[in-house]
Parts: sequence; C-alpha cells; structure tokens
Amino acid sequence: MEVSLSEAAQWLKQQEDIAILCHQSPDGDTFGSGSALCRALRRMGKRAQVLCSDSVGKRFQFLFEGLEEQQFTPRAVVSVDVADEQLLGTLQPIYGGKIQLCIDHHPSNTHYAQRWYVNPQASAVCEILCELIPMLGVELDKTIASELYTGIATDTGCFQYINVTPHTHRVAADLLEKGVPAPTINHAMFSTKSRERLQLERDALNTVEFYRNGDIAVISVTRKMVKETGATDDDTDGIASIPRSIEGVKIGATIKEKSDDLVKVSLRAPQPYNASEICAKFGGGGHPGAAGCAIHCGLAEAKKQLVAAISGYLDTL
Amino acid sequence: MEVSLSEAAQWLKQQEDIAILCHQSPDGDTFGSGSALCRALRRMGKRAQVLCSDSVGKRFQFLFEGLEEQQFTPRAVVSVDVADEQLLGTLQPIYGGKIQLCIDHHPSNTHYAQRWYVNPQASAVCEILCELIPMLGVELDKTIASELYTGIATDTGCFQYINVTPHTHRVAADLLEKGVPAPTINHAMFSTKSRERLQLERDALNTVEFYRNGDIAVISVTRKMVKETGATDDDTDGIASIPRSIEGVKIGATIKEKSDDLVKVSLRAPQPYNASEICAKFGGGGHPGAAGCAIHCGLAEAKKQLVAAISGYLDTL
Repeated sequence: MEVSLSEAAQWLKQQEDIAILCHQSPDGDTFGSGSALCRALRRMGKRAQVLCSDSVGKRFQFLFEGLEEQQFTPRAVVSVDVADEQLLGTLQPIYGGKIQLCIDHHPSNTHYAQRWYVNPQASAVCEILCELIPMLGVELDKTIASELYTGIATDTGCFQYINVTPHTHRVAADLLEKGVPAPTINHAMFSTKSRERLQLERDALNTVEFYRNGDIAVISVTRKMVKETGATDDDTDGIASIPRSIEGVKIGATIKEKSDDLVKVSLRAPQPYNASEICAKFGGGGHPGAAGCAIHCGLAEAKKQLVAAISGYLDTL
Repeated sequence: MEVSLSEAAQWLKQQEDIAILCHQSPDGDTFGSGSALCRALRRMGKRAQVLCSDSVGKRFQFLFEGLEEQQFTPRAVVSVDVADEQLLGTLQPIYGGKIQLCIDHHPSNTHYAQRWYVNPQASAVCEILCELIPMLGVELDKTIASELYTGIATDTGCFQYINVTPHTHRVAADLLEKGVPAPTINHAMFSTKSRERLQLERDALNTVEFYRNGDIAVISVTRKMVKETGATDDDTDGIASIPRSIEGVKIGATIKEKSDDLVKVSLRAPQPYNASEICAKFGGGGHPGAAGCAIHCGLAEAKKQLVAAISGYLDTL
C-alpha cells in the first residue's frame, strides 16, 4: 500500500534490526540515501546495515566512513532508490517479496514492497530523505547532509538536468548550511576521471561518425579498445554522453561491442527528441533523454540498423 | 565611493541613456548581467545599450534576443562584472575614467568607478542583480530570470564551485519559479562542444604526460594541432581543465604553443594546492584553483621549466 512520508517515518520508528537495500550498479543516490538512512537509524539506537549486490567503488567509499558492519538477522527490510525488485541483483533471491518499505522517486516504480512512498517530483531519493530524517527526530548534521547532497548532485548532474525543481535548490541551500564540503564532493563526482577512462575517451573520439548532415553522431567502443585501455564498465558508461554533446547533434549514440553477435547501445537526446522511442524498436527503453537497447549482431551491422532507425525516427518529425 | 545596493538602485532610477559595459573575453556573467540590466532599464522607459569590445558568440546570442540596438550618446556609464578598467579592451580608451557605477563581485576590484557596489560573497554579478532589479521596480520575468540564471550557472560551473553559497541556491530556486528553461540553458553552456573542440580534445589527450608519480599531468597544444583542427581560443580554453581532472593529479598543466619563443600556460589545482603560487614564479597569477602565465621560450623548454617549478612547489609542502 502507498504510504505518506510521515507514515513511513512512523513505521521506521517502530522497527529494529533494519536492512537497507540499494540497487545494483549503485550510484550516488542509492548509496547516499542508504548510508544517510543507516546513520539516522543508528543514531536512534537501532541496528541498521546497508546492503548492495555490488561492492562500494573508490568514489563512494567516503559515504560509508565510520559505518562499521553490524551483524544481525534483519527484522525489517527497506529499499532506497530501487524501482523494481529485479534491480536488487544478487540480493533479489534473498529479499524478493520481503521488502516492507520502499522509498523511491522513479515514476516506473513497480510497487513491489508492502508499503511504498514514491515521489516522482523529487530529483533524488536523497531529496526525500532531507524531509524524512528530521521526521525521525534525527538532526541533519554535516555527515548526513554530505551524503544527501551527494545523491542530489549525482542524480541531477550537479543541478543541470530537467529533474531539478525550485525545491531541489532550496534543499541544497539547507544542506550547504550544515557545512557540506560541496566543491570537494563535486570534484570527486564530476571532475575526476581515471587514466583508463581518459584513454578510452581518446580512442572513442577517433571513431566518431556523423550521419544525416550531423543530426546523428555515433561512437563505437570495441572489445579491443576496452581490453587495451583496461577501462571498466563505469568508464564506458561515462563516455555515452559524448556524441550528444557535439554541437548540432540531435541523437547521440554509443555502440559497445560485447561479443561477436551482441552490441549494447546507449542513446542520448536533447529535448524535444526522444531516445526511448528509438530504443523501443529494438526492444529496449528508458527515458526520452537517455535510453538503451541491445542488438544481436556484429558491430558494423548494428551500426547500420541503428542509424537507419534513427534516420527513420527523425524523418517522421 | 562605495555605495549600498539600494543607493545603486536609487542612482540608476535617476539616469537616462545608459551605456552598460561588459569585460573583454566576455562570459555568461558579464553578458547575462548586462542584458538583464539593459532590459530592466528599457522597461523603465529609459534608453540603454550593452557594449563589449568583443562580439557576442553564438553561445550567448540568446541573451540579446529582442534587444535591438538603440542609438544615443550615453549620459550614464555603468560596468558589470568588470574588475579593472584594463579589462574593457577596446572600450577602455573611450570610457576609462568615466564609469559612474560599477557592479561587481571580484574581491580584486580596483575601485576605478565613481561609485561601486562590490559583493565578493556573490557567486556572480547576476546573483546581485536578482536583488537589484526588483529594487528598480522591475519584475523578474522569464526572460530576465533566464539571463540571470545563465550568469550564475556559468560562473559556478553549474553550482559546482567553491563560490556557491546557500544564497546562490535560494536565488536559483526563485529564478526557476519564473519559468527559466534551465536544462536547455545548461545543455548549451556545459554540454555542447564544437566538432573542432572535440578533435582538439582527442589530439590533446594524445599528448598527456605524467610526472612525479602522477602528481603532475601536462597536456600540450601545438600550433599545428590548432591549425589542423580549426579550433578557436574558446576551444583551447575549454581543454585546460582536462589534466586536473585525471585521478590523483595535484597540479594539471596545459601548455599552448603561441610562437617559436612564446608559450601560454594554464594551471589548475584542486584544494589545497595553489596554482597561482607556481604561476607567480613566471610572472603570472590568478586564483589558487586556476592560474596562468607566459613563458618566453619553445614548447619543450617551457615544459621542462614548468615541471621543475611545479615539482619544486610540491616538494616544499
């Protein structure tokens, strides 16, 4: 059943030994809201633990500083920023069907939990927690505020995206007043690239191709490039925004070769173009601004099919 | 003499035929505050004109939409975001010594005007105008709000930098409520690169060199690279942040070959490192985070001298 934020807070107050579940391929919002909620619950004298199917990468380790592991059998299970149980990864077989409270902001949330608070107006779950944690009677100190800021900053591309509302900025103002080291967090989140990522970027820039008078830009990432640069999935995810960033480009595509007969496609589109409509033709989906799909063939053939589909889409506008 | 913001507003109300001066190498803040103030004064029934020694680049043209030129002999002269008269470029010989009001946020402002309002706590002059324009009795509508948002966003790296205060975020919230198309502005300001810039980036990434176990990263931009890619000064400015963005780098340097015996150096440093201390050794300067200098020799020799100076600086810490 759907619950209000104060009902969610009331319920949390009554729980003990709480597992907080994050989604797989974790980002700043699922980890930031997880660690902030965990700290808040511990300050209330409860045992709480953040769980995720993936390990905490170097970039996000600061969120868990001082949150030493607690051993207990969960008596309450909460998920943060998890739109669907499938996104729990290896935690799904353990906690699937047992989640008692879901706090989320995805409009696509599948209401898999016993109770859910889903606010699609919130830029991030961390924006929701700025209101929820004080309802628990816990003050937003510098540490918790920094975690919440991290989730909001990462989910909004540092206040760049369409999900930013006046409320998002006002919440950010309140968080800065708690002493959040925002420039340091932002440098780590947005301005730091691994050497591998930089090498991959250079190699990928060599592959840029334009179609339809520059309406479409495509970059290709081959298995060879990934192997030679030592780039991780995180590194390849980061370059998906490059083709769209080129002046005049309406649809930007990044094609990643996964095997001889599988490529993964990331599409990015500025307003008013709709990347998810194109990906739907290949059985994929996403948001209008960012979408993805898989094509079961080799890189060259996939590129041909994709460019044809994008051209067809643009022709209908 | 120093004036309060309301004194500045009172003075402006009494003026007619106002020239608004921007600094050379104009950015979003000098143009955004210039066009917003110009619109506000025109709405009050006055004649007003924005002047700049440089032309308005494609990226900023939207700021001047509908502000058709007015011909008049200025009877009042105001500067916005101009720290020193020297920064007026070709306007300096005409208006030097004649500026009656300066509105600025640079702590280094040289108080060259007859009256000045300088607020170094403001992230941007546009942040100041969010308060000043309503004092003139002019409402911040969508157009003016968009111009003010542009200046704040560009001067803060979209709310990333150390100059962002809680007040900055609160002002941004108020502007969004006026209907500012923030995602569109942000895409144009931060996520759009020319093809030339992209090619230069690729070529520059090929030159990355590391020194002192990765503490120092240097990229080199040769005249040949600039010529082959057709990159502009704006394009080369944009890549100066790349070396600093590499994981672990303490000082990032970009060396641009200007002639056989002149190179220009851009240094970038995260806190607590101080780029301007190093540039001072070569007669340059700037801020701790971003500084520059010229070295009168060839590219290879300049690189040697620079790396030695940076190593020497890091050794003393």
